[in-house]
Amino acid sequence: MTLTNSRSRPDLLGVLGGMGPLATADFLTKLISRTPARVDTEHIPLVVSSEPNIPVRALGLANDDPSSPLAAMLDRRDFLVSAGAQAIAMPCNTAHYWYAELSAGLDIPFIHIVDAVIAELEAAGLSGATIGLMGTRATVEGRLYEDPILERGFGCLVADADLTASHVVPGIALVKENRIPEAKEMMRHAVERLLDNGAEKVVLGCTELPVGLDMNDPWVAERCIDPTAALASACVDWAMAVRQRGG
Amino acid sequence: MTLTNSRSRPDLLGVLGGMGPLATADFLTKLISRTPARVDTEHIPLVVSSEPNIPVRALGLANDDPSSPLAAMLDRRDFLVSAGAQAIAMPCNTAHYWYAELSAGLDIPFIHIVDAVIAELEAAGLSGATIGLMGTRATVEGRLYEDPILERGFGCLVADADLTASHVVPGIALVKENRIPEAKEMMRHAVERLLDNGAEKVVLGCTELPVGLDMNDPWVAERCIDPTAALASACVDWAMAVRQRGG
Repeated sequence: MTLTNSRSRPDLLGVLGGMGPLATADFLTKLISRTPARVDTEHIPLVVSSEPNIPVRALGLANDDPSSPLAAMLDRRDFLVSAGAQAIAMPCNTAHYWYAELSAGLDIPFIHIVDAVIAELEAAGLSGATIGLMGTRATVEGRLYEDPILERGFGCLVADADLTASHVVPGIALVKENRIPEAKEMMRHAVERLLDNGAEKVVLGCTELPVGLDMNDPWVAERCIDPTAALASACVDWAMAVRQRGG
Repeated sequence: MTLTNSRSRPDLLGVLGGMGPLATADFLTKLISRTPARVDTEHIPLVVSSEPNIPVRALGLANDDPSSPLAAMLDRRDFLVSAGAQAIAMPCNTAHYWYAELSAGLDIPFIHIVDAVIAELEAAGLSGATIGLMGTRATVEGRLYEDPILERGFGCLVADADLTASHVVPGIALVKENRIPEAKEMMRHAVERLLDNGAEKVVLGCTELPVGLDMNDPWVAERCIDPTAALASACVDWAMAVRQRGG
């Protein structure tokens, strides 16, 4: 058996990670567990940049502001391309606010996390349902999920500013500190509030949320949609399609 | 805040992964959870190559044999160096059989998984104890752990060829197929056998073993040493030392 240099592998996936680091590891675990593989060689080759020093993903900054994360994200994207990536995935919801800039001029697919979630909602037969949404302030205020969800004919119930500030944002911070049990309690309260207010399913629109809530908990799995897992499934679909085309 | 390009970061860790893929994700999770960080920016920047197409790590092949994994591992090591890695870790026990070749001529540290395990055994006050060992045939027959463990004054009780063939190797294959509950049962039997025969602790000398056995299970945590976690701790120690030196 000879090794095809992964730098020229047609199914080499680039992962723009580190936002945050544990979310990146969670994405890789979900990607691997969703890959239909019986032996190592059937898994998807990966190049991962986990750069935890990308500036905070906050809105309202000019792209050339030194506090903007865009330059750092573009640098990491270009690194993945130079490493031979044939598609890019970014396991961070908020960072998709800069998707237009990150995918501009790129001649390989940049797999969008919101597209992956909407495909999963539709596959689950939820068309027309009211979808709850929680995420960072930037994800909520930037309408990252809300606009595409409404456009596809779903209803959308977004965590309000109070709930975001009191439970969602502090829960995310606890995951970044590795304080998972405390994070879980905080986040579960926010999920319950959205369900009480009429959501049929809740999109966990920040990669720290499924880490904190633990998607293996049946209570969570029944009520929530995990964008990290949806992105992983979309990446597996991409790799399998490339292989089927004989790539 | 400005981003230091991670390609020149003094604490950028390169991970030579994919042997197997799930073990690499497990290593990243353990690395992150052992890092004393409260926010993203305190985590360790990483470049990961997860190349599942590296030839099977079997002994007895000449290094220039096309079936040898060495050329592919050197290719991935060189990729990590070119990406700016300032140290390299390889979350695969068996692959350390080629450690001399992989670290030759390298001017950055290549953190050895067996050194990390021995440090952990000594820190746990087990000096002089009889240590059980299970792993792939190559790890056992190549005496990867046995020689250094004996040299440091421990006893060593190695899973024999029958137990390796009947329970250890099939358990590892089940993890690579994502069949974790079946793997766990298979592996637990092997741990019990080593304990019954006099081992005080069992080194899980293949990265698939702690994934299958689940180190969060108190029964396992009490009886087993996880080389993936030990390697993660050694990498955290490296990064913290680099930062303390003002790197």
